[in-house]
Amino acid sequence: MKLTILGCYSATPRVLTNPTAQVLEIKNHMFLIDCGEGTQVQLRKHKIKFNRIKHIFISHLHGDHFFGLAGLISTFRLLGRETDLHIFGPKGIKEIITLQMKLADSWTNYKLVFHELTSEDSKLIYDDEDLEVYTIPLKHRVYTNGFLFKEKEGDRKLDINAVETHKINIAYYRKLKQGFDVKNDEGKLIKNSVVTKPGTKPMSYAFCSDTAFHESIVTVIKNTDVLYHESTFLEQHEKLADPTKHSTAKQAATIAKMAQVKTLILGHYSTRYDNLNDFKTEAQTIFKNVKLAKDGKVFEFI
Amino acid sequence: MKLTILGCYSATPRVLTNPTAQVLEIKNHMFLIDCGEGTQVQLRKHKIKFNRIKHIFISHLHGDHFFGLAGLISTFRLLGRETDLHIFGPKGIKEIITLQMKLADSWTNYKLVFHELTSEDSKLIYDDEDLEVYTIPLKHRVYTNGFLFKEKEGDRKLDINAVETHKINIAYYRKLKQGFDVKNDEGKLIKNSVVTKPGTKPMSYAFCSDTAFHESIVTVIKNTDVLYHESTFLEQHEKLADPTKHSTAKQAATIAKMAQVKTLILGHYSTRYDNLNDFKTEAQTIFKNVKLAKDGKVFEFI
Repeated sequence: MKLTILGCYSATPRVLTNPTAQVLEIKNHMFLIDCGEGTQVQLRKHKIKFNRIKHIFISHLHGDHFFGLAGLISTFRLLGRETDLHIFGPKGIKEIITLQMKLADSWTNYKLVFHELTSEDSKLIYDDEDLEVYTIPLKHRVYTNGFLFKEKEGDRKLDINAVETHKINIAYYRKLKQGFDVKNDEGKLIKNSVVTKPGTKPMSYAFCSDTAFHESIVTVIKNTDVLYHESTFLEQHEKLADPTKHSTAKQAATIAKMAQVKTLILGHYSTRYDNLNDFKTEAQTIFKNVKLAKDGKVFEFI
Repeated sequence: MKLTILGCYSATPRVLTNPTAQVLEIKNHMFLIDCGEGTQVQLRKHKIKFNRIKHIFISHLHGDHFFGLAGLISTFRLLGRETDLHIFGPKGIKEIITLQMKLADSWTNYKLVFHELTSEDSKLIYDDEDLEVYTIPLKHRVYTNGFLFKEKEGDRKLDINAVETHKINIAYYRKLKQGFDVKNDEGKLIKNSVVTKPGTKPMSYAFCSDTAFHESIVTVIKNTDVLYHESTFLEQHEKLADPTKHSTAKQAATIAKMAQVKTLILGHYSTRYDNLNDFKTEAQTIFKNVKLAKDGKVFEFI
């Protein structure tokens, strides 16, 4: 599982800081999460192949999270894309993108599939052989979802020596990988655990931005491997966090602790702060394993 | 008159090239012309004060000319802008910007005034003491206008020696500057031209992008000092220019020659070309005084 931060600052794009966008590489998928202005340039800068992006997840319709979407869709068209593009985002996202295409009289050649979100509860919105994606209802000034990406339990691995010793026919290997007990050449039932080992441990990633401190997400993201939680402010500005429905570094760490995640990544910093290390120091008073998002940073998790 | 090119490439923003946006400084105004994605970052990079921009002119609703507008409007709000902002552009521009503000539940504190354009003829759309702005109807795939910025004839300058020699009372100086003949202390009529000199020569700038070769603009832009005319293609790709409703460098130069402008600036280059000098060489076979737009380039005209 690999996470590339294209932008992790709040509010407005600047010369050296980009609004929210990130690419999650998981089980051979490349998911784009949020798409602030300038995201397509960031994708180019980090040499991410446009065609590998087939699903875009938009948390909410504030500009710093989606003003790059219309341009990206339009660039895909200009480059002759043929692959379908799925867009998950709040109700209204279809209307705004369609209106822009109508006014420009520029329609995509490829299929654009909108999955508009309206539920206030966590929902399964994507499901394939390898993974599931759930919404994480957040608490912000407008309707907002985070997203939980969960790899499925993979196949078990054959212990080739044990399989041969127990004389199991090759025709049963698939069933073994799927976890079933099988009969061997002599008609004897062989316990699965005797001839297989656990497969790769499934990973999970939760993206939570933008949001105020919101305890009810804890049940949804419980035991997640990696949590990206916004921390627009430091505790010294907690009074700003409440009315703007953002979080402090300490609040993000509190959620990480309650949900017993393994790693917390902080991001969505207000540009008022010069020293990002203050976010880490503050969060670590509550939760140990804290990392700081930075534009262009790549996190690999195994 | 000063022109700052923020972006002058067609189609899609890239790491080193920006879509169309430029700032015209004229008679103490700062007019923003077009606003492709990333324009607000380009404005910051070139240290242009956001608050000095009170008028934005959008040629047409293709993304590379206006996908930066919603973000700029939103950033102005976040920075606490109070000054009115006037936006001139094709009908539909108000709907799209308003819908984005509605979905984000983020309304501007400052007054946003839309001047929607629908006419197929050149119209006076801005007029003050110092200058006028006219639309230049262009020929593109969607409804598109160029813009002609014309300084007004300034006051005449007093020839102080002549004024004293002819014994003209100070009370008449204003009338003299305005070009009137006045009576002197002895009741004798003094011809204006005897005691004044012409004021500063008024300048004019025509922005024409995007457009196919379109002869009928010549009457509108006749004798303009500076013409920015798109040249998406070189003559070798003329066959692409017609269906896409763009121009070649040679066609831009032909318009410049017919309109007898003083200077032609080329821009809106397709990113397929590596060497921009080919545009200049081609145009100069028709019209001598050709300059090339480049992102970040500043032209000063006096």
